[in-house]
Amino acid sequence: MTEADVFEWDVADPLAGARESFSLPDDVIYLDGNSLGAMPRAAASRVQEVVEREWGHDLIRSWNDNHWFELPYRIGDKIAGLIGADTGEVVVTDCVSINLYKLVSAALKLRPGRSKLVTEAGNFPTDLYILEGIQSSRAQPLEVNAVADRDQIISAIDEQTAVVLLTDVHYKTGHLLDMAAITTRAHDVGALVIWDLCHSAGALPVDLNAIGADFAVGCGYKYLNGGPGAPSFVFAAKRHLPDARQPLSGWWGHQSPFVFSDEFEPADGIGRMMSGTQGVIGLACAEVGVDISLRFGMTAIRDKSVRMTDLFIQLFDEHLAEYGFQLVSPRDSQHRGSQVAFTHAEGYAIMQALIARGVIGDFRAPDILRFGFAPLYLRYADVWQAIMTLAEIMKTGSWDCDEFKVVNAVT
Amino acid sequence: MTEADVFEWDVADPLAGARESFSLPDDVIYLDGNSLGAMPRAAASRVQEVVEREWGHDLIRSWNDNHWFELPYRIGDKIAGLIGADTGEVVVTDCVSINLYKLVSAALKLRPGRSKLVTEAGNFPTDLYILEGIQSSRAQPLEVNAVADRDQIISAIDEQTAVVLLTDVHYKTGHLLDMAAITTRAHDVGALVIWDLCHSAGALPVDLNAIGADFAVGCGYKYLNGGPGAPSFVFAAKRHLPDARQPLSGWWGHQSPFVFSDEFEPADGIGRMMSGTQGVIGLACAEVGVDISLRFGMTAIRDKSVRMTDLFIQLFDEHLAEYGFQLVSPRDSQHRGSQVAFTHAEGYAIMQALIARGVIGDFRAPDILRFGFAPLYLRYADVWQAIMTLAEIMKTGSWDCDEFKVVNAVT
Repeated sequence: MTEADVFEWDVADPLAGARESFSLPDDVIYLDGNSLGAMPRAAASRVQEVVEREWGHDLIRSWNDNHWFELPYRIGDKIAGLIGADTGEVVVTDCVSINLYKLVSAALKLRPGRSKLVTEAGNFPTDLYILEGIQSSRAQPLEVNAVADRDQIISAIDEQTAVVLLTDVHYKTGHLLDMAAITTRAHDVGALVIWDLCHSAGALPVDLNAIGADFAVGCGYKYLNGGPGAPSFVFAAKRHLPDARQPLSGWWGHQSPFVFSDEFEPADGIGRMMSGTQGVIGLACAEVGVDISLRFGMTAIRDKSVRMTDLFIQLFDEHLAEYGFQLVSPRDSQHRGSQVAFTHAEGYAIMQALIARGVIGDFRAPDILRFGFAPLYLRYADVWQAIMTLAEIMKTGSWDCDEFKVVNAVT
Repeated sequence: MTEADVFEWDVADPLAGARESFSLPDDVIYLDGNSLGAMPRAAASRVQEVVEREWGHDLIRSWNDNHWFELPYRIGDKIAGLIGADTGEVVVTDCVSINLYKLVSAALKLRPGRSKLVTEAGNFPTDLYILEGIQSSRAQPLEVNAVADRDQIISAIDEQTAVVLLTDVHYKTGHLLDMAAITTRAHDVGALVIWDLCHSAGALPVDLNAIGADFAVGCGYKYLNGGPGAPSFVFAAKRHLPDARQPLSGWWGHQSPFVFSDEFEPADGIGRMMSGTQGVIGLACAEVGVDISLRFGMTAIRDKSVRMTDLFIQLFDEHLAEYGFQLVSPRDSQHRGSQVAFTHAEGYAIMQALIARGVIGDFRAPDILRFGFAPLYLRYADVWQAIMTLAEIMKTGSWDCDEFKVVNAVT
């Protein structure tokens, strides 16, 4: 594999034109879109329009005239098209942690006689933290079985299991779970499944209704390029909507919020998964990113993602094998999301050295270097350049200095 | 009182210069800042900076380099200066409804042997709705006593009361509660108080620590001019922070979120009131509005607010008495927030006619016309003009047509 080969791939890339929809600094190779997606060029003008015209000029009238009330539903319906959901099954609101609280609470109520929840040890921590919060406030005891060995997850789901809460793409390794097999197993024993799509929505095709999924949440600011801290989305299958009740029963989840009655009546549809007033600027900004993913489509995005991560691993093998790295992501792309991670005892300093040279990935304690591949705005040449930069850092030992070894970043 | 008198007041107004900090349409008199505050001119440029430079160029590095992680605390500390709180007692995060859920849950846990909560019937509905959600998910029964007569609130607080949840300025009438007396009564019987400051923060001086307040929430998008759906704030008195635990235990409320441990450990300080990742654009925008209130100060804001609402009521008496309106706000400014409301059987159509002429207030079912007075950007001449426009509508009966009578707005 040569640099010239890689350039050929970029020339032939059907997604080559998508990069133009994003603004990226010239001196950066951005392999951290799995943590914060890049900025769509249209985001700046859209946000400006919302602030200056819709808020500044139209003021309170915008709730109706500029359809602010519809935003959570309109964007939700668009995201539905990326994750295999139907219109009316997805709403964009609040953050992932809070939406997990809503869904776990609602799902547990749908399985009142059961006391067990199955999840994965080492799942993204907020998923586990939220379960502690639910345990602390719940009337009945809840046994959380956080399975350490992924291969044991299916057998851990049994007739006492009320709910299964899993992330389909592991946030550190990119390892995929078999969503269909797990969902089927859960349903076979009468349990419900909540899928955390934070590392898959916008990165690979997810087909929630094809696998009969019950509930899901996902992140707006990673592969959906919604902006820093963009609101999250919630999916609830239509068959559950009449009976799914979540406890954060704020006025935006009411069937008729502007009747101002003292009694709560949950909205008929997916609106019942909302709670309070949503940030309009953040919502409007998030929509721009979602629109780009829709325009290019998940099939093309996944095809390029697989090719990029395969290339990264191939170049890793060719150029970095001798420096003490261990690949922790699956070699088989069928089992891999849109990210590649490897470990190194000096991972923190190495990542700092890499970032100082403009190649931005991230470090996850204790020793993981993590690289995300966002097919909409990355070039194959970026993959080549990233590996070559890392190889140069390792060859010269330039990471081995105080500047890079002192832990000063919170991310 | 003549128009010339009113112009004199504007000339002599110490807050006259504050209006320049806001952008308002020329053809509008905006008396709905108690629902959505106006746009600070600096908001547009600040938001543009966050989107284009901090997100677009600096990307993931902004969490540290542009202090995104600090925003909820930094803005919280600024709001603390408006509500009589100390540094480290306020954080800006999520929406009011969700923060109410956190605080009520935390406060109930601090009073484990008690089963009663006192609130007000006709409180802003989301406060009551959230209590239903808490009742539905809680191990112990919770008796909610929603007192119908405001004068009976203090006597309803007894030794069985765990928590009192009240809004200091009634959202419809603007009627003030006696925060000090209620807080003292609650503490005398061992109860805790949560104050909902949605209609007071930024409108009148609140001195939480002077009255020994326990907890509070408030709204960012009304008198604080934070933008549509701006995040809410949470106050917890320092003495409660070590023991106050809220169940939405997401990773942003963790003492060390980037250790990525599987076990939740709440942050030492006010950070434990956070849950998940916050919308950065909305936060940055909200800070601009808070800065303006700080610059001019709550004393000057309250002085002008009282004078404006007094003037509005005086002109109401002089020009509108004959048209069947009933004033439902207190005549005595000591008992009144920064809003004035009156009822009329044809209130909806009258408000639509008023809005069509550029005077924007709002209607609250079944019959309330509500007007908010934001001293930072309103002129006394606006008050005059609003009354004269309404008098003209009543005199000509121009509200009495299909265009205005058909209920087509959700707000």
